[in-house]
Amino acid sequence: MSAYVSGVGTSFFGKQPNTSPAELAWAAIGEAFADAGTDDPAGGHPIEAVYVGSVFGEPGVAMRALQGYALTGVPIVTVENACASGTSALNEAVRAIEAGRYERVLVLGLEQMSTLFKGPIIPQQTDTEGRTGLAMPSLYAMEASRWLHEGRVTLEQLAAVSVKNHRHAVHNPRAQYSGEYTLEQVLESPMISDPLTLLQCSPISDGAAAAVVSATASSERDVRVLGVAQQAGGPWDHRTTDVWGYRLIRDTAVAAFEAAGLAPADVDVAEVHDAFTIGELTTTEALGLAPEGQAGEYAATGVTALGGRLPVNPSGGLLSRGHPLGATGVAQVAEIVTQVRGEAGDRQVPDARIGLVETMGGGVAGVDGNACVVALFGNSEVEGD
Amino acid sequence: MSAYVSGVGTSFFGKQPNTSPAELAWAAIGEAFADAGTDDPAGGHPIEAVYVGSVFGEPGVAMRALQGYALTGVPIVTVENACASGTSALNEAVRAIEAGRYERVLVLGLEQMSTLFKGPIIPQQTDTEGRTGLAMPSLYAMEASRWLHEGRVTLEQLAAVSVKNHRHAVHNPRAQYSGEYTLEQVLESPMISDPLTLLQCSPISDGAAAAVVSATASSERDVRVLGVAQQAGGPWDHRTTDVWGYRLIRDTAVAAFEAAGLAPADVDVAEVHDAFTIGELTTTEALGLAPEGQAGEYAATGVTALGGRLPVNPSGGLLSRGHPLGATGVAQVAEIVTQVRGEAGDRQVPDARIGLVETMGGGVAGVDGNACVVALFGNSEVEGD
Repeated sequence: MSAYVSGVGTSFFGKQPNTSPAELAWAAIGEAFADAGTDDPAGGHPIEAVYVGSVFGEPGVAMRALQGYALTGVPIVTVENACASGTSALNEAVRAIEAGRYERVLVLGLEQMSTLFKGPIIPQQTDTEGRTGLAMPSLYAMEASRWLHEGRVTLEQLAAVSVKNHRHAVHNPRAQYSGEYTLEQVLESPMISDPLTLLQCSPISDGAAAAVVSATASSERDVRVLGVAQQAGGPWDHRTTDVWGYRLIRDTAVAAFEAAGLAPADVDVAEVHDAFTIGELTTTEALGLAPEGQAGEYAATGVTALGGRLPVNPSGGLLSRGHPLGATGVAQVAEIVTQVRGEAGDRQVPDARIGLVETMGGGVAGVDGNACVVALFGNSEVEGD
Repeated sequence: MSAYVSGVGTSFFGKQPNTSPAELAWAAIGEAFADAGTDDPAGGHPIEAVYVGSVFGEPGVAMRALQGYALTGVPIVTVENACASGTSALNEAVRAIEAGRYERVLVLGLEQMSTLFKGPIIPQQTDTEGRTGLAMPSLYAMEASRWLHEGRVTLEQLAAVSVKNHRHAVHNPRAQYSGEYTLEQVLESPMISDPLTLLQCSPISDGAAAAVVSATASSERDVRVLGVAQQAGGPWDHRTTDVWGYRLIRDTAVAAFEAAGLAPADVDVAEVHDAFTIGELTTTEALGLAPEGQAGEYAATGVTALGGRLPVNPSGGLLSRGHPLGATGVAQVAEIVTQVRGEAGDRQVPDARIGLVETMGGGVAGVDGNACVVALFGNSEVEGD
């Protein structure tokens, strides 16, 4: 059986410490229900289960968010899978729909971070990374340093990702940050973890995103899930030039493309995990969207910019839209669904038919990433069952 | 398709602040693998996915626990559903097996609480309960007060649950507490929240439990999942005599019995959510295991004791075995699987063929329980597909 996304919604993204997590969720759920024509959850297409992605939410965060929509008499499953929590929830929801367990479910991604973090997220003190003081920016900085050393990327190419994604976000009214920056401004912004400067790091964010997933398409606007795969990483072999997470993303992508019967060349638009600029570049290559060693050039020459051949992160990505961990994956889904529907306004990728979402959660326990999810979505022009 | 539990394991339960959560998990996983004949996860029956229940675990707690068993290259889904987290993870695992997604998966329940809590668990300050100072013992005390007022239970019957479950735990070497108490000792132990005394409240616990769930039975010892249901509560109607959670448990049980094609009279042994003595009594009635108003008498007269017609909580239950939130549901499953296999030693329920597990998570947001899971298990003598 197939699964379709029939409605998507998001809150504003940004630091909103005085807005409760439930209020963030309500904004996203309300928009998703209206979008799916499911304003009344007790109406013709009731929600039969809810899958929630949240990392730092207090126990019961899902129930608090859902009772405002009377979404309480159904199975509710809250999933924690680091930065991939939202898309892990999506994966479980899609599999449940495909298995015929439900006709219609809600996926919710939710995170309030501004009340918890005043600086970077630091792995647990029991982790190798935490013990050695490696906060998340440092882990990505090691990736960047390795690729710089190998000649696989330049400082200017790294900065170009930030320029591009901040420019994309100018057309996204829900984005946390946006703006027209020069390469110099990016490179001269405060150094966070060499070589990554402030404008190359995703911010601390609060936000929510929601998607209604259905077993049947009820309109041309419903977007089919062409394939989805999830994996956790194995031990990371530091001796290879496959930087942290690279192999995990590659393997997960292979599984997702195989499930969809597609190849990277079929992708028209992608939302990928640019928690830091280097992340977008390693990911673009690991996904097969750019040949080895060319992702940096793609960013610098506009191939992956709006107007280019394969726009990556038209929403502004994690770097600019923001990165509320549990919400991020579902926000990526909302963007890709909006793109392949042709409803993305000033940031629309022309003729986008097939879109890709990739989320990568990691940073603990010395493994090659905590979890990676890759999902492919197609509009009604895409042939399928 | 059916799902079978082919192996179970637990750690010791108790306050173990100097044992890491990963070490607790390893004890449970190792025992479950050995029990399932799956010592080598890369062997003949590799684990294809892991579902983890945890409430208070730090982000990434699953990955930290699993890498010690090289269980890292597969989908890992961590589920938070209050006290029902472990059985919610089981439900998702069973459904994934039934849908044909996997041949063999691991369910892990894990919680370390002694490092976090020095007193009772208090709902969030944003909840009605938290705002009014209602900690978990108080919520259950309100249930007990209502039933005492209605004449549906007596103080001595409440205390009898504690006497019974502590006595059961004498035969469970993994239990946190056990002992031979008199009704008077229970009633005269320190008052926690009137009418619930110390010996009527489950303790703060650390522990883990694991279960290997398979699509096919490979031995007579494999225990079939006859039916499982999960629900979240709707708004709790305080005006009825259906105390908090009662209706949710009843509705979930109806769904589980229907899925299994069974009735309460078919149950030979049960592990239910006795976080407080009143909890076992309301639950026993809500499940249909005792007629309305008779659960107290069942406990007082030995019907639900080892040696009685329908032993409830032969492991000692949450009251005595302990209650590490995310682990509890999986520990209940381990007990019931051991019972219907006839391998429970001194606490064996004679001729147990069909067992029931019930977990109830609640305490937030003024609803009739956060989540309830009811599951039914049968040994190879039980007919089925």
